[in-house]
Amino acid sequence: MTLNSQVIYTKPPTEFPVVGETVKISKSTIDLDAPLPEGDILLKNLVLSVDPYMRGRMRDPAIDSYAPAFEYDSVLTGDTVGLVIKSNNPKFSQGDLVYGRTSLGYFEEYSHVKGSYADESYVVRNDPKTNGLPLSYYVGVLGMPGLSAYVGLKKYGRPKSGETLYISAASGAVGQIVGQIGKALGLYVVGSAGSDDKVEYLKELGFDGAFNYKTENIDAKLTELCPKGIDIYFESVGGSMLEHVLNHANNFGRIIACGMISQYNTQNPYGVRNLLYIVTKRLAFDGFIIMDKENMVYEEEFIKTCTQWLLEGKIKYRETIVDGIENTPQALLDVLKGRNFGKQVVQVTSF
Amino acid sequence: MTLNSQVIYTKPPTEFPVVGETVKISKSTIDLDAPLPEGDILLKNLVLSVDPYMRGRMRDPAIDSYAPAFEYDSVLTGDTVGLVIKSNNPKFSQGDLVYGRTSLGYFEEYSHVKGSYADESYVVRNDPKTNGLPLSYYVGVLGMPGLSAYVGLKKYGRPKSGETLYISAASGAVGQIVGQIGKALGLYVVGSAGSDDKVEYLKELGFDGAFNYKTENIDAKLTELCPKGIDIYFESVGGSMLEHVLNHANNFGRIIACGMISQYNTQNPYGVRNLLYIVTKRLAFDGFIIMDKENMVYEEEFIKTCTQWLLEGKIKYRETIVDGIENTPQALLDVLKGRNFGKQVVQVTSF
Repeated sequence: MTLNSQVIYTKPPTEFPVVGETVKISKSTIDLDAPLPEGDILLKNLVLSVDPYMRGRMRDPAIDSYAPAFEYDSVLTGDTVGLVIKSNNPKFSQGDLVYGRTSLGYFEEYSHVKGSYADESYVVRNDPKTNGLPLSYYVGVLGMPGLSAYVGLKKYGRPKSGETLYISAASGAVGQIVGQIGKALGLYVVGSAGSDDKVEYLKELGFDGAFNYKTENIDAKLTELCPKGIDIYFESVGGSMLEHVLNHANNFGRIIACGMISQYNTQNPYGVRNLLYIVTKRLAFDGFIIMDKENMVYEEEFIKTCTQWLLEGKIKYRETIVDGIENTPQALLDVLKGRNFGKQVVQVTSF
Repeated sequence: MTLNSQVIYTKPPTEFPVVGETVKISKSTIDLDAPLPEGDILLKNLVLSVDPYMRGRMRDPAIDSYAPAFEYDSVLTGDTVGLVIKSNNPKFSQGDLVYGRTSLGYFEEYSHVKGSYADESYVVRNDPKTNGLPLSYYVGVLGMPGLSAYVGLKKYGRPKSGETLYISAASGAVGQIVGQIGKALGLYVVGSAGSDDKVEYLKELGFDGAFNYKTENIDAKLTELCPKGIDIYFESVGGSMLEHVLNHANNFGRIIACGMISQYNTQNPYGVRNLLYIVTKRLAFDGFIIMDKENMVYEEEFIKTCTQWLLEGKIKYRETIVDGIENTPQALLDVLKGRNFGKQVVQVTSF
């Protein structure tokens, strides 16, 4: 028997998750030599993706939402990269790298994955064996966050060269890609983030303007940095930030609602008071979830395009990688508090 | 010289317009026998349309919005039907009925309209001379309100047979048409209004459900009357009503934002706290203004279709008609307070 550390979700937190309590590490054992039933696979997990949306799954299962509630006292799931160490499934071969995606990969050192679950939740991603890109990119810039940026901006943003794009949480897993794609499309790109070094990073990426929303006056900075108003807002924050943006939105502006992190961990959601602008400015405010089928159809096209961009150095990607599965609960809390810089990833072990 | 009663807007009200103060009647004179400069026309106004959106034009002109602010101490403008009593413009003949539209018709008994303004703001509508439909329909069901219902529902609502459509302000100038078109498209249609007789009227129109939002528990009634949730919301109210609807919206729901009357006359706009549903339910929340070119292109198609519906009795239309231009300020206040029943119109004089 082999020791198997697992990330366990116990129950919904009141506001922020509590490390060691609502999300904790547990040790179990697994028999890596037991015969595998037909269809099943055995994985050694290498990389875990820690993302803000996961907070939404930590809820009473009676509350319906786009992603099912996490089961109480169970192994947490999310996006992962793993190595197939044994397979009794024709779709997977020993030695394959696999992406456990749309929030269904297991957060543990080793996973025995049942056949139907494997077919539904894991896809082979052997490219990083040869192209030199880090495995972690496959849960970030080349995974759901990158795809969210690509689909969100192109499909819901309907960008036209010369327009102003504003991105909140701009140095995050999704925002930094949105901004770089925006620049490539000829947009004037402005972003905000929660520390001066994040703001510096945005400027390095070629953003036309960037500011620290925690230390600066948001309204004044939007006036200064978006002198022609905001045509496209990539929304990941919600609350008062959204209210500010509505004040600065141009007629026929688009709001691409990818998330609202300010509203995830609170018992007192913020009341947005200027929605009348949606009418008077004829705004289009579209929510989307990348894991919907209609959006996932862009996945292969996106991976091909974005891999090329990365290899050519056209797109950069900043990550915070923490070593060791035992640090996953804290990493999740850090993401929800904005303490990460770029995409937050946990390296379970190296390839 | 002929006496000419005019509706004068003086200055922005703090909350609701004040009759006799911020909107008042003034008497001037006009020389109907004076020679008309080339391009000009002389109108006898017959019908004035009193609409909620007019409140939005009563603002500090420094505040930009889709429709220009009304000029202080000037004749109010809006949608009108008038009779050409003299013309020196090849587009208009003596005896023509004209529609002064997209909020540009003058609110006075007689109007001397300059050539370029006439070309821009007035169109000939001689159909009611022969089809027997009331003139008032041409500022209502066949005017901007009817067109708003048609374009809003079809273009932004993307209705599919069997879906649930909910309409706030459902007995109003726009809402009653939305509901009837919705029924014709095979939707399950529910509406709310502010009195029991309005609710009765909605049921007479064939609505599948209707309730009085002032006396009933909105949440409980939406649960009861929209058991499958809300797929399309035709939004004219905003504020807390919007918050309730977001709670009841289905995944991939559409919110057609035509107006938000609850937010027009207040210094304390309501803060909507559950916009996170726009993301998690992947809602499309689209504001639109009927007078935009991209929407006005539907005008002729709509008038043709809707005239036929009215003549065949497929669409009914309820109006509140008040006689005498001197009652216009009060009629406007009544509309903003929801005291009208159906489309509010002022009959200046008969044809």
